[in-house]
Amino acid sequence: MKEILMIPGPTNVPDHIIKAMAKPLISHRSAAFHTLYDNISTNLKYVFQTENDVFILTSSGTGGVECAVANIISKGDRVIVPVHGDFSLRLKDTVKKFGGIPVELIVKWGNAPTASMIEETLEKEADVKGVFVVYNETSTGVTIRDLAKIGEVCRKHSVLFVVDTISNLGGDYLNVDEWNVDLCITGSQKCLACPPGLSMISVSNKAWKMIKTKGANSYYFDLLKFKQYHKKKETPYTPAIPLFYALEEGLQMLKLEGLKNRIIRHEKCANVFYEAAEASGLELYAAKPVRSNTVITIKNPQGINTNKMRKIMREKFGVLISGGMGAIKESTFRIGSMGIVSKKEVKITINALENALLSLGYRSEKG
Amino acid sequence: MKEILMIPGPTNVPDHIIKAMAKPLISHRSAAFHTLYDNISTNLKYVFQTENDVFILTSSGTGGVECAVANIISKGDRVIVPVHGDFSLRLKDTVKKFGGIPVELIVKWGNAPTASMIEETLEKEADVKGVFVVYNETSTGVTIRDLAKIGEVCRKHSVLFVVDTISNLGGDYLNVDEWNVDLCITGSQKCLACPPGLSMISVSNKAWKMIKTKGANSYYFDLLKFKQYHKKKETPYTPAIPLFYALEEGLQMLKLEGLKNRIIRHEKCANVFYEAAEASGLELYAAKPVRSNTVITIKNPQGINTNKMRKIMREKFGVLISGGMGAIKESTFRIGSMGIVSKKEVKITINALENALLSLGYRSEKG
Repeated sequence: MKEILMIPGPTNVPDHIIKAMAKPLISHRSAAFHTLYDNISTNLKYVFQTENDVFILTSSGTGGVECAVANIISKGDRVIVPVHGDFSLRLKDTVKKFGGIPVELIVKWGNAPTASMIEETLEKEADVKGVFVVYNETSTGVTIRDLAKIGEVCRKHSVLFVVDTISNLGGDYLNVDEWNVDLCITGSQKCLACPPGLSMISVSNKAWKMIKTKGANSYYFDLLKFKQYHKKKETPYTPAIPLFYALEEGLQMLKLEGLKNRIIRHEKCANVFYEAAEASGLELYAAKPVRSNTVITIKNPQGINTNKMRKIMREKFGVLISGGMGAIKESTFRIGSMGIVSKKEVKITINALENALLSLGYRSEKG
Repeated sequence: MKEILMIPGPTNVPDHIIKAMAKPLISHRSAAFHTLYDNISTNLKYVFQTENDVFILTSSGTGGVECAVANIISKGDRVIVPVHGDFSLRLKDTVKKFGGIPVELIVKWGNAPTASMIEETLEKEADVKGVFVVYNETSTGVTIRDLAKIGEVCRKHSVLFVVDTISNLGGDYLNVDEWNVDLCITGSQKCLACPPGLSMISVSNKAWKMIKTKGANSYYFDLLKFKQYHKKKETPYTPAIPLFYALEEGLQMLKLEGLKNRIIRHEKCANVFYEAAEASGLELYAAKPVRSNTVITIKNPQGINTNKMRKIMREKFGVLISGGMGAIKESTFRIGSMGIVSKKEVKITINALENALLSLGYRSEKG
């Protein structure tokens, strides 16, 4: 039985993307690589909805976040980092690693920071350099629905806006240029339906001004080096070429589907999960207005061992979902619904979930 | 015509290693991943000749070097970095990026630093924390033949010994434990004959003591996090799973051949290149006693446009070699002889080189 991956990344990768990796290796300083790089770059601008250059890093998404922080943060810089889940906690820790001082903004987990919260904090706090947010919290299943408004607030206050969109770019709305996102980071293994190992980052002119005067606190993630090689359609260091082949294919597939269609598909699939969960009397972790298009976080039903439940789903139905994460590790479980997800995978997953729950004696309070 | 890659990485990857990447994606928090991680770990210890743990980073080799530096160097730390090529220059720059003060040791390019040079410098300079070297300089084709002796000097002086072996681990002798190497870094795309995108680093107990008290100046490359997840046979962040599949296969292949046999094969292939170059009256960049097993750097023959020469080699013979690098970019060219290289590829390359030279009017002064 072939397992289906309904975890929040890595996700199911279509066969032709997998097969793209089997092309012969080429030199990363050759004309063939320049064409590959160019194809990827053009389509990344489309996915990011930006005229800014988008750089490709050989690293996990966490490396992409480190890249943003290392190029922006100098010792003592104060930045607003709303913490509303485990990944925004990581972001805060990364800011601290590089000597930054995170201005914490307390958000109850399950909710999202709002534009007015950010604006209030900006008005109260002096010398804030930027606002760093996680658009889609992979731990709580929450998406910041105010993202465009927060971008507008950042523009108004002349602070940088840095957005981690690792788990939803391509699966939810984001217009980097219109929404004033200065640095936008994503990963290959989520809504782009590619294997893990690459992260991508877009850089605005406003961000470049700061980066040029500051200089990166990293050699590997130095964006000025990436910009210099970008002109030659190359990366400064040897890139993970097979993953570039896969990304080229994945982006081509996305372009054929159309970004908007892909987002709507993600939205529809997530809604089927939300409706099914509610119909079964399962409690969602995220507040309704900020529910994610890509990660469904569900509270563990009372009396049910969800580790056992997941084991049954996997062994009997070939469906892999995830446990909780961070502070809510023991009280939630998560379904990833991203990439090439369709009604078919959603139905199989819901069926597996309902059957596993039933076999463990779960009875909906509603039913 | 299928091209053969005779550049200093990425190198030719055998079909079954390429095919290994096509296996279905798995969760990086699953039992299947634990087995994969375990297989790789065991074989990496063999390749590194160490009882230390070896960590796998989703990054280029340069990321591996950054990892070593970020975990060791605190602001103001003085370390000896002999600069004898473009990659040791990078290493020096990385040390500086992290606030370290490189104690420069002047080595004429084409030569290698010696144990007595290092010892003299250690005796002259106060407060030195470590010695950072590039074992095999991919720019000059020079290998530090005194590496074991330098390790002994470092042990005697109680300083850390950090070695970048990116372009020759598996292709030249190195015994991490016997040679007192505290941090040893390599990459996937050189002598291991795997695709690029992973780097590996071993950490000694002596290094751990320092790392534990210092803490990393990086979130992504924090070795303490890697150590913590290593116990679970996992990586802290989503790894490049297809590249792990390839590495598993590549290491299995290396084990079947035997490390010593693989090194001897590299040595023999390099020697055929050296003999052919000398017979053709071509001048080698590296001094004879420190010539590399894996990278052959040749001075451009007078009056020959080696860019044209490389173009002919590629277009007429399907053989790809490299130009020079850094300060010797315009005066040298390079052949990479690594991974699965055999007499066959060596012969094809020499034949292509000689024919291309001939067609450009090259006449050996010897002939």
